[in-house]
Amino acid sequence: MTVYNAPLRDMQFVLHDVLDIARYSNLPGFADATPDVIDAILGEGAKLASNVLHPLNQSGDREGCARHADGSVTTPKGFKEAYDQFREGGWQGLGFDPAYGGQGLPYVVAVAFNEMVSAANMSFGMYPGLARGAADAILAHGTDEQKAAFLPKMISGEWGGTMNLTEPHCGTDLGLLRTKAVPQKDGSYKISGQKIFISAGEHDLNDNIIHLVLARIDGAPEGVKGISLFIVPKILISADGSLGARNGVSCGKIEEKMGIHANSTCVMNYDDATGWLLGEEHKGLKAMFTMMNVARLGVGLQGLAISEVSYQNGASYAKDRIQGRSLTGAKAADKPADPIIVHPDVRRMLLEQKATIEGARAWMYWTALQADLHHRSPDAAERQKADDFLGLMTPALKAYLTEKGFWHAANAQQVLGGHGYIGEWGMEQFVRDARIAMIYEGANGIQALDLVGRKLPRDGGRGLQAFFSEVDQFIAENKGDADLKPFLDGLAGAKEDVGEATGWLMTNGFSNPDNAGAGSMDFLHLFALFCLAFGWAQLAKAAVARMKAGDKDPFYANKLLTGKFFLARILPDAKAHLAKLKTGAEPLMALAAEAF
Amino acid sequence: MTVYNAPLRDMQFVLHDVLDIARYSNLPGFADATPDVIDAILGEGAKLASNVLHPLNQSGDREGCARHADGSVTTPKGFKEAYDQFREGGWQGLGFDPAYGGQGLPYVVAVAFNEMVSAANMSFGMYPGLARGAADAILAHGTDEQKAAFLPKMISGEWGGTMNLTEPHCGTDLGLLRTKAVPQKDGSYKISGQKIFISAGEHDLNDNIIHLVLARIDGAPEGVKGISLFIVPKILISADGSLGARNGVSCGKIEEKMGIHANSTCVMNYDDATGWLLGEEHKGLKAMFTMMNVARLGVGLQGLAISEVSYQNGASYAKDRIQGRSLTGAKAADKPADPIIVHPDVRRMLLEQKATIEGARAWMYWTALQADLHHRSPDAAERQKADDFLGLMTPALKAYLTEKGFWHAANAQQVLGGHGYIGEWGMEQFVRDARIAMIYEGANGIQALDLVGRKLPRDGGRGLQAFFSEVDQFIAENKGDADLKPFLDGLAGAKEDVGEATGWLMTNGFSNPDNAGAGSMDFLHLFALFCLAFGWAQLAKAAVARMKAGDKDPFYANKLLTGKFFLARILPDAKAHLAKLKTGAEPLMALAAEAF
Repeated sequence: MTVYNAPLRDMQFVLHDVLDIARYSNLPGFADATPDVIDAILGEGAKLASNVLHPLNQSGDREGCARHADGSVTTPKGFKEAYDQFREGGWQGLGFDPAYGGQGLPYVVAVAFNEMVSAANMSFGMYPGLARGAADAILAHGTDEQKAAFLPKMISGEWGGTMNLTEPHCGTDLGLLRTKAVPQKDGSYKISGQKIFISAGEHDLNDNIIHLVLARIDGAPEGVKGISLFIVPKILISADGSLGARNGVSCGKIEEKMGIHANSTCVMNYDDATGWLLGEEHKGLKAMFTMMNVARLGVGLQGLAISEVSYQNGASYAKDRIQGRSLTGAKAADKPADPIIVHPDVRRMLLEQKATIEGARAWMYWTALQADLHHRSPDAAERQKADDFLGLMTPALKAYLTEKGFWHAANAQQVLGGHGYIGEWGMEQFVRDARIAMIYEGANGIQALDLVGRKLPRDGGRGLQAFFSEVDQFIAENKGDADLKPFLDGLAGAKEDVGEATGWLMTNGFSNPDNAGAGSMDFLHLFALFCLAFGWAQLAKAAVARMKAGDKDPFYANKLLTGKFFLARILPDAKAHLAKLKTGAEPLMALAAEAF
Repeated sequence: MTVYNAPLRDMQFVLHDVLDIARYSNLPGFADATPDVIDAILGEGAKLASNVLHPLNQSGDREGCARHADGSVTTPKGFKEAYDQFREGGWQGLGFDPAYGGQGLPYVVAVAFNEMVSAANMSFGMYPGLARGAADAILAHGTDEQKAAFLPKMISGEWGGTMNLTEPHCGTDLGLLRTKAVPQKDGSYKISGQKIFISAGEHDLNDNIIHLVLARIDGAPEGVKGISLFIVPKILISADGSLGARNGVSCGKIEEKMGIHANSTCVMNYDDATGWLLGEEHKGLKAMFTMMNVARLGVGLQGLAISEVSYQNGASYAKDRIQGRSLTGAKAADKPADPIIVHPDVRRMLLEQKATIEGARAWMYWTALQADLHHRSPDAAERQKADDFLGLMTPALKAYLTEKGFWHAANAQQVLGGHGYIGEWGMEQFVRDARIAMIYEGANGIQALDLVGRKLPRDGGRGLQAFFSEVDQFIAENKGDADLKPFLDGLAGAKEDVGEATGWLMTNGFSNPDNAGAGSMDFLHLFALFCLAFGWAQLAKAAVARMKAGDKDPFYANKLLTGKFFLARILPDAKAHLAKLKTGAEPLMALAAEAF
């Protein structure tokens, strides 16, 4: 009963008006990506998302995946056919290197498409999403032979891929992992061990699944410095490239979860499975992080996507459902009651979503463009700056947008009242599905530590300083524009708060690292609000430019109104985060463990 | 795999040290409720909750209720036997008038017991909970004959009860309801119509179920002024009091919901069912509100209860699970990693629960004591003040504690990482179960409107002014105590913020009621933080008194540390709510409905 309409207009506004990606035509792949081409691609993607993937979302949740006695797993009815359409459409290769069969389009365009897929059917999107992450890692760390052997089929969508990190006794602390790799004479390894929580670990969408597996080579050092990464195909590949014998890897169980029922979350058993080292010995974690960073952006995007689809369904219900009268007198006097969108608190719930979604889309796509610059710019300084930005933004996008995705889905559910709690209306599925995104690919608390403990201090704080400069320059360039004043003021205020928080962390985090840990989540939220304020300032600038050019489309005026809601009703949380952060570690650490 | 240990020590601390309920021995029922008696009762209740009810919580969720072809409904395995123990123990009659077979104990003691039941098994607790609400309404509005006919069997737990308000086209706006009541010559009515979302509407725990049903008498005025309340037993009662023929009411369907699977949520069909008017014609809503107010406190209590049980399981995992090292060096050097409770952000999640739970318990029990004073005090002025407090607190407790209950359950789930998302660990059930409490008995947005639109201005703001006086008096009495200074400062600051918010609403709400609506949820949160600050100031005072008397039990020092976390990390949100409230209606109302 839910619907999904891809927000093409908003996406195009960010890509063309805000980011003006046409100006990057000097980068590989960008010249061909004219606005018309991008719009045509996203238009086709929107049809796939709305007409093929979204209709399977609720049925997929109800049916779930099934593991059979032989360890094979089938996805819900319709998933295989939908995936075939996805594969045949070449969607998997959108942003990949043409050298391996990809279309070489800007990553930021692929991100817009991925947003639609995740919004339409989060469980479905995880299958190709994990495969893209695995392909990225092979692209970055594989030998030429490995790239030639795996990438064309992964990028075409014929083969899938997974990441295998977690074991029963270790998720966050990978130093504890026990899966073993024994070197063989032919240069391969025999991998043995058990991995859990493996998304898309086994299923029927692909002919083969390329597992990337963290394991410890016999005699390796203890801890994270003894971990290596291996390529372990489900089905071994013969010398002629055809599929050969089944490898020693199998799905032992699929988990009963709160949501994402249509994605198979597997216990994977490795029993002398043949694998090949990917990248260097004992440097597997670094190689895996290539994959994880992409995956983390993808998970942040899931948060944004679930916010969008739940918002759409909440808003649609609010305009339709009549109940009570406006506090200022009947608005639909011909009906027995007014639509509930007349009620301020219903609008509050919806606008918290709408204003965050639109600001976050600007932020997310801006960050995705940094990935393009990092990989494709001919200018080394630009590449480095882009990489700094990417590192800084990734944990914040992941944690903030997934927390909001869950909360937004719950708010949209709230708009439906009792119906929101009933399965057939589909809203409670969004809440259940959204919940995992706060946990996987590094729980949100880990993201906050990554931001505060690694990304902030890295290279003497170069990333944040560069971002501050970017913001300062934006403010300086636009400060004469009266229409933009509230947005620039909000942005400047948030920057000051982030600066103050950073100073506090520098002063107090060295003497007691718990001070940094204690403030990490508040810092992340504060930083995210600052980034959203930057996103909104950019959106406002683009909207004002259109209006000044005489465009009367209410789209632009509405953009400013939505932005003003952000300033009035969301940004004020920044001060509370700053105040909490500055109380330091003491309030959290004083209580003895046994008193909990 | 979850556990529940009733927090008896904390409950006793609130009842005896903070509220000192022994000083109300002049009230009916209180004299017998000596501390020893109360502790013995709660101790027995704790055993029932932990040993009988909690073990059925996860199995009940998995199995759910089943409706059979004849419209009968069976509860999950073990529920009937557990209910028999509950009934035989006389638990249903705890706070009820001895004239009808109750034990006449203070309501506040019954609330402490109900907290345990809801924490142990929320779905189970709803069956007797709804029955208590129905009995309360009959007690308040029934004729002597009605009371004699229904109350003894309801209070003994033999018969159940429900409230039937919602229809497919109306939940919040009861003025739209269509269920009809046709007067009969014998003084009864024939009731026809359909009700939805009826919790405990049909089940196998009781011999009979007494439905209270809102309906419109033939020819009644339109809207809420034409609604009457009726008693409609599932099975008619013969002249001799024995069960007679089946009445024309049946369960047409049970809903597939996000959670509380072990409670049957029914579509109830009334087909010329025989009913009797309860209270006056066309004044059904007022009578139903007797029931709803009790129910709303009960739902707020569910929020507190789910917070408690999810906290316990999250804390237990955090002390047990080893993963990573403390930021300040290994704390469990003999183990391969430290328990995750060493991490500040894990503590943050747990302490947000712990500090809210403990403050909220003081607030909730203080409010329950007001219900006792309202019903039992010989002093009319005290009765009135207590009623004012009850009216003021009820919507805030309902909305704030249910929102926190959901959020806390999600945070506790987060502590478990990936395991939190897996069904067998039991944490995701708490999240799904907790979610309904924000919706039913008046969605939280309705509670905020009730607080701001009705309870605040009622009788010229008498309730809030009296509460302010209570707080001022507390501050004045304790201001010499240096140990209490941070708590008194926090309380005074919150009071000032509430005062400022109230002033803003008075100034701006009359000219534009949307200003009040737009600020209602922020006001509710701000007010709740103020009440929690009062709760914490009272807890701190009681703890300091014990410590000054030489009690070395770390319980008291830990209480102060937990309270200081509240001041440092939760209370600062008050300012953000105030800032948002004062931005008024414009940011919410400016956007046209079609722009959503």
